[in-house]
Amino acid sequence: MKKYKTGIINVTGYAGLELARILESHPSVELCSVTGRSLAGKKLSDVFPYLHRLDLPITENLEGQVDVAFLALPHKEGAALVPALLEKGMRVIDISADFRLKDPALYQAWYGFEHPCPGLLEEAVYGLPELKRKDIAGARLVANPGCYPTSAILGLVPAFKSDLIEPSAIIDAKSGLSGSGRTPTVKTIFCEADEDVCAYSIGTHRHQPEIVQELCRASRGVIPRVTFCPHLVPMSRGILSTAYARLKQPVTDEEVKEIYRQFYKDEPFVKVTAEPPHTRYTRGTNMCFIYPVVDALNEQLIVISCIDNLVKGAAGQAVQNMNIMLGLAETEGLEAMATLP
Amino acid sequence: MKKYKTGIINVTGYAGLELARILESHPSVELCSVTGRSLAGKKLSDVFPYLHRLDLPITENLEGQVDVAFLALPHKEGAALVPALLEKGMRVIDISADFRLKDPALYQAWYGFEHPCPGLLEEAVYGLPELKRKDIAGARLVANPGCYPTSAILGLVPAFKSDLIEPSAIIDAKSGLSGSGRTPTVKTIFCEADEDVCAYSIGTHRHQPEIVQELCRASRGVIPRVTFCPHLVPMSRGILSTAYARLKQPVTDEEVKEIYRQFYKDEPFVKVTAEPPHTRYTRGTNMCFIYPVVDALNEQLIVISCIDNLVKGAAGQAVQNMNIMLGLAETEGLEAMATLP
Amino acid sequence: MKKYKTGIINVTGYAGLELARILESHPSVELCSVTGRSLAGKKLSDVFPYLHRLDLPITENLEGQVDVAFLALPHKEGAALVPALLEKGMRVIDISADFRLKDPALYQAWYGFEHPCPGLLEEAVYGLPELKRKDIAGARLVANPGCYPTSAILGLVPAFKSDLIEPSAIIDAKSGLSGSGRTPTVKTIFCEADEDVCAYSIGTHRHQPEIVQELCRASRGVIPRVTFCPHLVPMSRGILSTAYARLKQPVTDEEVKEIYRQFYKDEPFVKVTAEPPHTRYTRGTNMCFIYPVVDALNEQLIVISCIDNLVKGAAGQAVQNMNIMLGLAETEGLEAMATLP
Amino acid sequence: MKKYKTGIINVTGYAGLELARILESHPSVELCSVTGRSLAGKKLSDVFPYLHRLDLPITENLEGQVDVAFLALPHKEGAALVPALLEKGMRVIDISADFRLKDPALYQAWYGFEHPCPGLLEEAVYGLPELKRKDIAGARLVANPGCYPTSAILGLVPAFKSDLIEPSAIIDAKSGLSGSGRTPTVKTIFCEADEDVCAYSIGTHRHQPEIVQELCRASRGVIPRVTFCPHLVPMSRGILSTAYARLKQPVTDEEVKEIYRQFYKDEPFVKVTAEPPHTRYTRGTNMCFIYPVVDALNEQLIVISCIDNLVKGAAGQAVQNMNIMLGLAETEGLEAMATLP
Repeated sequence: MKKYKTGIINVTGYAGLELARILESHPSVELCSVTGRSLAGKKLSDVFPYLHRLDLPITENLEGQVDVAFLALPHKEGAALVPALLEKGMRVIDISADFRLKDPALYQAWYGFEHPCPGLLEEAVYGLPELKRKDIAGARLVANPGCYPTSAILGLVPAFKSDLIEPSAIIDAKSGLSGSGRTPTVKTIFCEADEDVCAYSIGTHRHQPEIVQELCRASRGVIPRVTFCPHLVPMSRGILSTAYARLKQPVTDEEVKEIYRQFYKDEPFVKVTAEPPHTRYTRGTNMCFIYPVVDALNEQLIVISCIDNLVKGAAGQAVQNMNIMLGLAETEGLEAMATLP
Repeated sequence: MKKYKTGIINVTGYAGLELARILESHPSVELCSVTGRSLAGKKLSDVFPYLHRLDLPITENLEGQVDVAFLALPHKEGAALVPALLEKGMRVIDISADFRLKDPALYQAWYGFEHPCPGLLEEAVYGLPELKRKDIAGARLVANPGCYPTSAILGLVPAFKSDLIEPSAIIDAKSGLSGSGRTPTVKTIFCEADEDVCAYSIGTHRHQPEIVQELCRASRGVIPRVTFCPHLVPMSRGILSTAYARLKQPVTDEEVKEIYRQFYKDEPFVKVTAEPPHTRYTRGTNMCFIYPVVDALNEQLIVISCIDNLVKGAAGQAVQNMNIMLGLAETEGLEAMATLP
Repeated sequence: MKKYKTGIINVTGYAGLELARILESHPSVELCSVTGRSLAGKKLSDVFPYLHRLDLPITENLEGQVDVAFLALPHKEGAALVPALLEKGMRVIDISADFRLKDPALYQAWYGFEHPCPGLLEEAVYGLPELKRKDIAGARLVANPGCYPTSAILGLVPAFKSDLIEPSAIIDAKSGLSGSGRTPTVKTIFCEADEDVCAYSIGTHRHQPEIVQELCRASRGVIPRVTFCPHLVPMSRGILSTAYARLKQPVTDEEVKEIYRQFYKDEPFVKVTAEPPHTRYTRGTNMCFIYPVVDALNEQLIVISCIDNLVKGAAGQAVQNMNIMLGLAETEGLEAMATLP
Repeated sequence: MKKYKTGIINVTGYAGLELARILESHPSVELCSVTGRSLAGKKLSDVFPYLHRLDLPITENLEGQVDVAFLALPHKEGAALVPALLEKGMRVIDISADFRLKDPALYQAWYGFEHPCPGLLEEAVYGLPELKRKDIAGARLVANPGCYPTSAILGLVPAFKSDLIEPSAIIDAKSGLSGSGRTPTVKTIFCEADEDVCAYSIGTHRHQPEIVQELCRASRGVIPRVTFCPHLVPMSRGILSTAYARLKQPVTDEEVKEIYRQFYKDEPFVKVTAEPPHTRYTRGTNMCFIYPVVDALNEQLIVISCIDNLVKGAAGQAVQNMNIMLGLAETEGLEAMATLP
């Protein structure tokens, strides 16, 4: 069987490495080219011995013609490369934030740079398959959602679409350290991050406008108030978002749970749970576990949602998007259940 | 110098052990008697070699007359012992929840038992020194606050007392595993708790009525709506509470910070910080670090507060209460700064 | 394609759960029956939500006729079941220690019980495929090796077979907590195991006679002196064994490395590395990474070897043995590379 | 009471910060000056909020005349400063390796630099109080021992001095990450170090010649063969050394334990334990726990010894040395027992 050709631009961060791992075992695609700057010239398996079957050379630029190019560059660095890739007829899935926001002004405001190709922002599809499956299928350019937004949006959209809650939400998110990347900083060394919890970027995190943009669509254009407060917890992988929103009118816990179960009943990667889920259920998987619960006394809806930030929050969702774009089974290469403990 | 005599009833849990450690190095008191059931007959230092200077025998019952008796029994088990201790003229500091709630009916509702000495509930002083210093000084019986309530109440009281916020709060708390105690369960073994975050007891945690009771006093009798959602994070010690409340009217971030700084300016164990604090700053200390911040866009006040759940959230606060009751300097024996990393 | 039928007796420990996870995704077999005592009557996916596709009922006894039965019972409990399973024509792979030792007296001495079917000890094949591939292929009953022995034996056998070292070795092993099982004990709760290293069972660990037995075969019947000292380190998975042995005569580091590379050159699950390996390279995989190095100054050979104790040290090796017994490709179902970080 | 004045040169690494913490609470000394390069001009408590009582300014150079200057610079950087400090009449305790080795050639061979003041090497006292108390008392310059050497030497010296073992030892050491310092590197970020064990610098670690030098003195000039293999384990603090040595002649386990107990019977900071000790017993303390055990079958002595690498292995031992040099009680400021969990 002919396999589709794929390439990863900037394989050496955590999202890029995770993509390489998933693509290597994907039955319908071949990983043909991986790029990296400082490590160009070396073999992937020599630098990362745990990827022992991936003896591809790391090159400076994408080599050959691929069907799908994954961009795993830091924000702002990849956008300028996209037009040329599209021109060569490649599909592009960008894991960075460069094509997630529709309004170019938001890039200036939140990311501090002028977008190099604002004309592509409208075309780019926000690649959250549970909400945009059809658009993704026909897309040339997919903007892969951020990790926090994936968990928060999947957790809140059923409530917004069912008109259960006021257009306002508090999202208290807890993330493992891999979201901070592989570049070493004092804050992320073991001795500083272990045995600690802290909040950061309160009200200023760049994922906030992304969450607002997508929840706005789910609530028919009403711009919701979103208070987003991320925290770091001492683990490598996983995000757990706890969202709080005021109920518009009384509804029972069981009614809400049934709305959520119905909303996601055909989704292979979303599971509504009977008990509060654990981030470790998602470790290494493309799953999102969601638990809605009504705090009747205070007329609040609370929704817990969790994912593996590097899989459903990055590389896995990118492969899910690729599967949809190539007409493959959406779950191909993404069937792994968590490896516990 | 004559030292006050102290005893610990049930020394073998984490709060009891932490009390023993602190009392051993306290210059004005002597630890004379420690009890424990399954370990009675052994020396404390033999069972817990890290407490190598504490070669006291563990006995079944409190031995001798002490000035202050600390109760570190599980909820419900210690209450019945208190009348006899008081009758002997001992001051009693109960680390369990048995005397924290004023309304006996709440024990039936939240703890599932009929209180054995409801007549003492009114007399018992809720031992949060920052709010009740005078009452504590004259008390015979102090109910040492819970760990979650300590962090949540200290974080929200200045806002309630200054009438900054609506009588409603969401408290999203993150706790290390020592809050779950030393008795082994599947959920608390390393392999199940490591690399994981989860929420639990959503809307049903027993610390909720305690928080409501005390915040109610701070807001002049208005019963606030409190949505309390605790989480477990993979660390041994520390609680970080993130509280969200709607501002009554616009106020600047700097105004709020100044209100908090003024409120706590003379408190030796509370520090208002310029940046979001880390739980590890509190490790092994009696400190509470608090960071209030205004989310102007959404008219929310967010307050981060963190403590060491076994010190300011249990044993340290108990010693602080003892110091006040005995007329000692409030900080005696509690001066340690965190040992990092 | 017809799939082979498999069953797991006692699925609820870590080895059993890992077996279930691997068998679920194995292309040539079907997991038909799983047993468990306390949880009988529930669905596997209800008790362990992360195994969301495994909605098999947990039963008290193995149901139906399977081609291969895996025993994942604690030591001593499974042996008596084996004769009946063999009689029904099933192949049996026992993950416990009950059939690893050839000498029945050793069970009395090291495990404290009289072996119920000593007659099967001779027939049982010690299932370390790298050494016993042919015997395994024809076996009815395979004794799956212990986790420590797997890492230690694979690390030392090339040196013994090549007559490089004196018949004596010190094995200093470091294991994650999952080797201590899922049954909660004070020693294995997070708060006691985190941020700690300790040695245990020095000179008395039950894996010692197993290591001696197999190294004896590798050194042509000379019984080697083995000092075995296991340690617990605060992680969930992984064993790293550091073995020290005196060189019989001078040999260069490169010569030794070449001997090891040659010895394992056709092995799909053993990789000789150029740098000291990390246990996390093996996480969730059936790989063993080995690094031999000569300490010329002291005429010592040092061999680092590491595995995932639950995969190559238990469930994965059991599936590798099953593949061999059924004539399948040895790597089927075991291709996963590590999911890092 | 007049307090002695102290200063720390380079306070911003882990050893320097730990020194600051210990000196702040030391009853007989005052911390007067702390230096740091990149952070000069800031207050210590602003950069490190957990040291909230230490509002000293960080300066570029040591300010004022101190009685004792602690050097906590990286190896090689501090040596050149020492002559001037001594000339000013200060006592100097160097936490780096710059004055530990007696033979200047070893600095060229192991550290790659020419020693700037080899004339001081002979004068410098190797500051292991349990072995050199008298020399330390009269010293101007103390070379504070390395962390691995402290644990290894204390563990083996009684055996060498009692002529129990052959002049040869294998030291398999396990260290937490703080030994790797506060400067961020990829290897020490949380995501790379967590859930992992690895060996490093096998046979090439710079602490090896230091161990050999001191064990040589203990064995009356016979240069012992030392195979030293350090490992990193995922915790912040603590070193556990497992030493293996061949017994010269049969000796019982109880005889060895008694020799060790006698050897250390008057030492306030060494405790011979009845069971294998845990590194967490030492956390934040100046204690060394030692457990010797005889492997009679193989005629081996095994000695487990553990310390907190930042306290007994660095800052605490430096303060112990200072106490001796100043004629203070040796335990002053170092009485803390471990804060567990």
